[in-house]
Formats: sequence, C-alpha cells, structure tokens
Amino acid sequence: MEREQLRKYAELGVKVGINLQPGQPLVIGYGDRQVLPEHVAFAQVLTEVAYEAGASFVQIDWGDEHWKRQTVAHGSLDLYEERLKWQLEWVERMAKEGAGFLAIPAADPTLFEGIDNERVTRATRAKDAIFRDFTDRRTNDLYSWTLMSMPTQAWANKVFPELPEGERVEALWKDILFCTRANNDNPVAAWQAHLKNLQNRADWLNRLHIDTLHYTAPGTDLYVKMAHYHYWKSGASETAAGVPFVANMPTEEVFSAPDRLGVSGTVSSTMPLNHNGTLIEGIQLRFEQGRIVEAHAARGEEGLRRIVEADEGSHYLGEVALVPVDSPISKNGRLFFNTLFDENASCHLAIGKAYSLIEGGRDLPFEEWEAHGLNRSMMHVDFMIGSAELDIDATTLSGATVPIMRKGRWTEEV
Amino acid sequence: MEREQLRKYAELGVKVGINLQPGQPLVIGYGDRQVLPEHVAFAQVLTEVAYEAGASFVQIDWGDEHWKRQTVAHGSLDLYEERLKWQLEWVERMAKEGAGFLAIPAADPTLFEGIDNERVTRATRAKDAIFRDFTDRRTNDLYSWTLMSMPTQAWANKVFPELPEGERVEALWKDILFCTRANNDNPVAAWQAHLKNLQNRADWLNRLHIDTLHYTAPGTDLYVKMAHYHYWKSGASETAAGVPFVANMPTEEVFSAPDRLGVSGTVSSTMPLNHNGTLIEGIQLRFEQGRIVEAHAARGEEGLRRIVEADEGSHYLGEVALVPVDSPISKNGRLFFNTLFDENASCHLAIGKAYSLIEGGRDLPFEEWEAHGLNRSMMHVDFMIGSAELDIDATTLSGATVPIMRKGRWTEEV
Repeated sequence: MEREQLRKYAELGVKVGINLQPGQPLVIGYGDRQVLPEHVAFAQVLTEVAYEAGASFVQIDWGDEHWKRQTVAHGSLDLYEERLKWQLEWVERMAKEGAGFLAIPAADPTLFEGIDNERVTRATRAKDAIFRDFTDRRTNDLYSWTLMSMPTQAWANKVFPELPEGERVEALWKDILFCTRANNDNPVAAWQAHLKNLQNRADWLNRLHIDTLHYTAPGTDLYVKMAHYHYWKSGASETAAGVPFVANMPTEEVFSAPDRLGVSGTVSSTMPLNHNGTLIEGIQLRFEQGRIVEAHAARGEEGLRRIVEADEGSHYLGEVALVPVDSPISKNGRLFFNTLFDENASCHLAIGKAYSLIEGGRDLPFEEWEAHGLNRSMMHVDFMIGSAELDIDATTLSGATVPIMRKGRWTEEV
Repeated sequence: MEREQLRKYAELGVKVGINLQPGQPLVIGYGDRQVLPEHVAFAQVLTEVAYEAGASFVQIDWGDEHWKRQTVAHGSLDLYEERLKWQLEWVERMAKEGAGFLAIPAADPTLFEGIDNERVTRATRAKDAIFRDFTDRRTNDLYSWTLMSMPTQAWANKVFPELPEGERVEALWKDILFCTRANNDNPVAAWQAHLKNLQNRADWLNRLHIDTLHYTAPGTDLYVKMAHYHYWKSGASETAAGVPFVANMPTEEVFSAPDRLGVSGTVSSTMPLNHNGTLIEGIQLRFEQGRIVEAHAARGEEGLRRIVEADEGSHYLGEVALVPVDSPISKNGRLFFNTLFDENASCHLAIGKAYSLIEGGRDLPFEEWEAHGLNRSMMHVDFMIGSAELDIDATTLSGATVPIMRKGRWTEEV
C-alpha cells in the first residue's frame, strides 16, 4: 500500500468520519476494537493526520488477536475482566475530554474456533457488559465515532482464497478503497454527494409515515412494526454538540427503529455473520410479539445463542436497515465476512440495542426507551437478510400499502 | 526469522530469563518499554511459550515509537503524563499478583531528534518519575524480570548501514542469536555453563576485598571507591522469594556498587549511548567527591544533561561493571547502539541508581541506602568506558595493589 493512498484514506477517517475539531483528542482503538499490530503503518498515518488537523492528543490502544485467542483459551478470565475494567477507565477519561473514537475492525472470523464455548461466552459477555454504558453513549452519538477498516492477512485469506496468498491483502485493500470511495480524486467531495443521496432516500421513507414493513423472501415472512414517531436516518450523523460525522465507512444504508414488541414471523439470513471471532451462517429466527422464540444456525449456532441469550433485550430487534442489491458494495458481489462491509451490501436487521431514532429520541433517558418501543441490550448485532429475492411492502399509518423493494431493489428513484 | 528459532529464543526468555513459575502471570512490555508492533510474531510466540509453561495470565502492552515521537512533539503532555499514571496502575496490579516482567528494548536511537528539548525532557522525566517506585522494586529484584531484544528495521538500519536494506534485520537477528547463545543446540544448558563462568569471576573479585579501583585510559583517570561490604554479582539473579532468574540477555558483566561519595577524576566514554531515543557520543565527566561537576558530550549533550540533571542522585554513580574486550560480544566488534548489547561488550559505569550489592542490601530500606554509600536516583543509565587501552588496578582493603585489567583484558584466568 502506498503511503499516499494510506494518507488519503486516513484523511477520510479523520476529516469526514470523525470530523476532528482543533483541540479535540482522538482515540484510535478502544475496548474490544483495539488496533492490530498489523495496522501499524495506517495507525502512524492516522496519528500524523490527526495532529496536523489540530488534535490535542492522539491515543492508540493496541491489541493482538493471537494474544486474545491464547488468553481466552488458557488465561485467568478474572484478570482478563479486571484488565477490561482498567481499560474502560481511560476510555471514559478520554470521553470526558471530548475525544472522537475511531476503530479499525478487521477481526479474524475464525479467531475463537475450537475454544471451550463457556470460556468464549464468559469473555465476550464480560467485554460487552463492562463497556455497555460507554457503548450506549457512543452509539447514541454523544461523541463523534467512526468505524473504518484495513486488511489483515487472516481476513484477506478468508475473502480471497482463490488468489495466491501474497496477492490477497492488496486485493482486499483495493476493494476497501472502492467501497469507501477513497480511490476517488476528491474523496471528501465524493462523500458529501453520497451522503446527500442517502438522505434523499431517508426523506422519501419519512414522507411515507410507515406503520409496518412486510418482508417476503425464501425462508422469510416477517412483519416489522416501526416505533411510533420513528424516522429514517442515513449515514450522516451529528454529535450532541452539533458536529456532523460519519459513523461507518463505508455506509450505504438507511435505517430506523422497530417497535420492539411489534415483530412477528420468520426471517432467514442471506450472508454469514462474523461476530467476535465466531462465524455464524444460515441463521433462522422466529418472532412472536417482538421476541425471538426460535433461533437456529446452520453453522456457529453456539455463537448465535451467545448473542440472543446475552440479556433480555437481545431477544428483540433494535434496528431495521434498507440497502438495495444494486448498491456499489452489493454489486461488487464479494462476501467480506466483516459486518462493516457486508451490512452495506444488504438489507439487515440488528438483534439488540436500538438507535434512538424517534422524534426527541436523543434526549430520552435510557430508562424510558422501552416505553417508546426502543429496545435496550448490551448487544447490537447486525445480520444480513437482503437478496435479489426479497420484496418489502409498507403499510402506512393511513392504511395504504406501498411497495418499497422488489427483488431487492427500490421501487422508486429519488 | 523462522518460527522454530523464534521459539527457542522465546523459551530462553521465559525459562531462563524470567524462569516463569506455574501459576505466575507474565507481563510483556511495561512503562516505557512497551512491545513494538514490529515484534508481533515474537510476542505471539512468547505468549504461547508462557501459557505452555503454566502462566496464569499473559499481558502484552504495546506501544509504537512513531506515536511516541508524534505525541512528544505535538500532543498534550498533561494527558501523556496522566496516561502513564494509568498504565502504572495495571503494572502495580500485576506486581501484586507476582508477575514476571519481560521487556524487549529496541528503541530507535534517533527517535527524538529534532524535537524541542524542553518537551523531550518533560516527557522522559515524567515517565521516569511515575515509574520510579516500581523500577526501584524491580531492579532490587523483588520480582523476576528480564530484558531481551529483537531487531527492528530502524535499529538494523543504524547497525548495518553497509548492507542492502532488505538484509539488515536478518543480519541483526543473527548477531542477537549469537550474543544470547540462542543459536546453540541447547541454549538453556549453554546459559547454565556461562552463568557459572561469570560467577567464578565474581568470586575472584570478591576474594580480593577491593577498596578502590583506578581506571586509566586515554581521557580517563578515575578513582572509584567501592561501597563498604560490597560484593560482585554476575548476571544470575534471585527474587526475594528465592527464584533464580537472569535480568539481562545477553549478560557478560560482573558488577557491584561504588561508594557514591568515593568517585574522583575524569572518565571518557568509548561507545555511543542510545538513551530514550537520543544518541549521545563522546561523553566526558569529571567527578569530585562522587559528584559529577563537569559533563560534556561531543553529540547529544542535551540528552546527557537530561540524565545528569534529572535529580540529585543522577549526579552520582550507581554501578561499576567489568567486561573484558575479549567477551564474545566485544569480539564480534559490532556497535549495537543498544545498551543491552553494548554494555556487555565493554566495561561500563552507571549514572544514577545503585543495585543494593552490599551484604544485607536487599533488606535495606531505600531511605537508608545513602548512609551505606548506595546511590538513589530515578535514573540508571549505563555508559561504556571499556577499550583495549583501558587498565584497571585495585587497591585492596589490606593495602595491596592488584592489577585487574590490562589493555581491557582480565589479568588472571579463573
């Protein structure tokens, strides 16, 4: 990877993703999303770009997946938990200082394969529980935060098994640059135009005043009632202080909040899910009054159970997201085994925590969320249900039926 | 580097260096000696070896030198200090848990070149001050600890400028394996024999009951009175709990404690010193009643001043170490710009903190050290004074004069 290209990508992350303000600290890697040693060159360029943009302090938290696997397999989980708590302290210190939070998820999809399930469950739950409050605040956009990715050899091996090993990382890097529009001459301008398009789509959905969505596809017949006063949002976010930022790079989705008790029927995943180092494929869920009453997976069912059974809220949905099959990432046709990319190639749902996408939602105290239909959980796990066989119809509040998607594509241009 | 060779080297560190006991945690990297991302492969093998040896928990603290340079140049030093204090908390937690402490020093000798001296001084002093108590306990062998090294590209560039860039790391790795006896068929047995030889040399010096050493060489005419009841020690150490370990790999020295007020005359360094990212060459010191009253350097004098002026104790000597010019590392003839190697190729002295190498010294409270001639300081910086032109004579307590070294070599076989 050329330094020049790395720099362009880093600038995108710092200037568009975080939109770093002069005097603001930048945290690179936190919690379970520490920076991999393999990403040292990118972390160095991010640091440079951030200090040039006036960062008061740049912090990098490194972590090695091999160490994590070894420690979850053989180490004291008491000390592992204690260490996570200690790590949280500094993350909170940086949050207090108004930091932006940038992470570079690139987890090995087979990291925990073969390790005692009880230990994996304990370790991953501990992490989710310890970081839960911080995660709530972050995903509620109290701080600017962004996820962007970089290849690793292990990840590239999974995505490009047909290529010689020495060419896989470069191939994945090329796809990442394509998906994030970073190979553009002026990536910042390209992103502004792109975010405008997504906002137009959200505006169209908002004008419909949807009551319920009905998904039909092979293995899927699902009704999702939307939260009262919900609105659809694009990838353009804003902090509590009014600073715009982009939480996911890439982003192709428009998304909103379902009524947690208003989901019924069955749904089947259409793409594998890499969650915390476990690969889960062929998910089938059945819902009654919002609750997941059956959960199966053709592969990684233990991993699926860890998600669904994490807490009470993880038995309900928190997010509904729409992505057409002709989005650039989807047309690219590559399975990334990385949610940041795969969720932007496909309509998806999230098990667990909602975003507060109802009018006045940002100021709603967490304890009042459920009363407004918004789900709360320590989990927020997207799984992909989009395909060229998916139809979606909306019933609006005024009782009309409006086709939203046919064969995975929007029914109307906007 | 072959994994098999890495493994042998890692086993040396874990089994001989730390001598890890079953159920003991291992800390890899701490304080200013964090693990470089470049050393990921070695850190992974160390982790494996440690868990196989029964470690209860392995911790790796990563740090990137480029980040450090950028942050010392541009970041908030208040936050930098706060972060160091937070890091210390976990180090102390691990110390309480009885951990062994392994570090892999490989600092870029030009890391801080060109950065405002005041900021470099503040950052390096903060680190030394914050870790001072822990360092005192560690270097007093309350815990098992070891320093071993691994190549980095930046370091290899400095050591092998005459080779093509792509061959330098491998060349340095080869030298490291040679110097640490890790290329031996049975490195653990080779180390046992080697430590025995060093102990024989220490025994010989102990039998002499030395009062004063007199160093003469070009630019050097120095008298060093030894601390009362001092003894000479080899690289074989023992924790307070009686577990043997080796603090430095390689180690070729025998060393003891001078009387802090008993040093007079002048001394000139014979090799460059890489201290905290600053290269210091051509050191000249003049002592009166133990105190450094003049300090000059041909290069990096600011760095030398940072050392000498750190605190009151850094104006005095804390260690006297003897290494003949025909030690394997010295005969290798290569300048490493890394104290761990260079100090084992050359007689050296240390500015700053002593080791408690007097009878009963380990149990001596720190506040009583000075009364016994032992120096205290937050610094402990070795500088090399050995050469083939160095003569050393001892005056013994019984008034005899005994030649110790002639032209840099021991006067007697042991």
